[in-house]
Amino acid sequence: MRLRVDFGYDGRDFIGWATQPGLRSVEQTLSEACGTILRSEVPRLTIAGRTDAGVHARGAVCHLDVDPRAYETLPARSGREPADAAARRLNGVLPADIVVHRVREAPPGFDARFSALSRRYSYRICDDPSTRDPLRRHDTVFIKRSLDPRLLNEAAQHLVGLNDFASFCKRRDGATTVRTLLHYRWERIADGTLVASVGADAFCHSMVRSLVGVVLPVGDGSRKIEWPAQVLGGLRRHPAVKVMPAHGLCLEEISYPPDDRLAARAAESRTTRELPETS
Amino acid sequence: MRLRVDFGYDGRDFIGWATQPGLRSVEQTLSEACGTILRSEVPRLTIAGRTDAGVHARGAVCHLDVDPRAYETLPARSGREPADAAARRLNGVLPADIVVHRVREAPPGFDARFSALSRRYSYRICDDPSTRDPLRRHDTVFIKRSLDPRLLNEAAQHLVGLNDFASFCKRRDGATTVRTLLHYRWERIADGTLVASVGADAFCHSMVRSLVGVVLPVGDGSRKIEWPAQVLGGLRRHPAVKVMPAHGLCLEEISYPPDDRLAARAAESRTTRELPETS
Repeated sequence: MRLRVDFGYDGRDFIGWATQPGLRSVEQTLSEACGTILRSEVPRLTIAGRTDAGVHARGAVCHLDVDPRAYETLPARSGREPADAAARRLNGVLPADIVVHRVREAPPGFDARFSALSRRYSYRICDDPSTRDPLRRHDTVFIKRSLDPRLLNEAAQHLVGLNDFASFCKRRDGATTVRTLLHYRWERIADGTLVASVGADAFCHSMVRSLVGVVLPVGDGSRKIEWPAQVLGGLRRHPAVKVMPAHGLCLEEISYPPDDRLAARAAESRTTRELPETS
Repeated sequence: MRLRVDFGYDGRDFIGWATQPGLRSVEQTLSEACGTILRSEVPRLTIAGRTDAGVHARGAVCHLDVDPRAYETLPARSGREPADAAARRLNGVLPADIVVHRVREAPPGFDARFSALSRRYSYRICDDPSTRDPLRRHDTVFIKRSLDPRLLNEAAQHLVGLNDFASFCKRRDGATTVRTLLHYRWERIADGTLVASVGADAFCHSMVRSLVGVVLPVGDGSRKIEWPAQVLGGLRRHPAVKVMPAHGLCLEEISYPPDDRLAARAAESRTTRELPETS
């Protein structure tokens, strides 16, 4: 029996998603909580959107396979549906920096990682000292030069589409860096913060933070609109592209196809992409 | 020479605005930073909107009187205007949980506290486990019952106006609890959070947190729309009104009249209100 878990976390005090011996990871913390409430071995979690140290998530999704008997005895004491009882008990066991939004029985063919159609991240920048919000300093990057969102958007549009993003990824042997960047938009929201929304079928390691870094010199007027597209075409990392800090980045959403397409999508993803995904 | 300082802070690790021996207050931290950059004695700060332990601020305003010679030598090394140099140096000296947005020379007659026309606070509540944001847990209160913003607004409207808010204040001998509640509105914003905006000429101690607490039983359907107005009319604290937690509350804005009305407004405030303001 497979469960889908939707959750979020404040990445500040985690080494990232992936378990590393002796360090505090989201994966280990969440999987141990699952084992605790199911009174079972610590289950293996499969994630869509692995994140690096310090990156946040509001819309992460994982799956785990459980013994139906352990799952169905969960509501015995609370009179709730098992899925609702599981979510409540997980939140009771987890530390405050991980929040489970929902637990449900996964439909047939569902794989949190391989069934996913796309991932969407946000990146937050404050470029105006007079609107700097001390409450958002842990998820918003402050920079000292002011940025024009119109220029940021023009530059970003040249990166959208099916491309080899080798210029914006840490290389790994034998792994493709070809991805479809579905959208990349900047918006100045009501409180003055600049927020990027970046969506792709999947991302390579550090790709979103590099896609943010490459358009900032356009936004502050120090480089031409065409520069990010030139870097993309160069197919190798460019020393002037800054990989932006982790704490501005947040995984917002994983999109899945309708239930009857889950298995087909998973099969398709497996054949085209073998890289462990990260951002 | 009088300076106006606009600033904000994350209230989590402060005992509140006011200095208390041996504890970390915003007042002491900011005034010591002012003394450091001016190479002077620690100046006395006058604040609009004193806050309690744990309450945040994005739009706080204070003033301080400085020796013009100390102020005018500030930009010597940086080539900036003195006001801009002061703001930058303060942010260089202050811890990350206080941010100075702007420093300027105050117009004649300006008093941060007594010239103020009104104060505006926000209060943030999440009432839906599926949208609970782990990144906002320090400025958003999570409650387990769902609330109807239409009912919250209807109840809130009955509290607006010139009233004796004794039911919602900690009593202090000889101090009036008559205030003008200028507006009190609830809105469910895009991410699902319920945000209250509450404005008044001034607030008594714990008043905003009580005004939030009194409408929640209406919003969840457990009390009638008229109940908050009945509590108001009772002129004494009601045991069923919860004073809500500090961390959902944020001072958003202090409003001042045009420059030519600052001195008159200060004189008017001094005669009608002698209570040290807090919220």
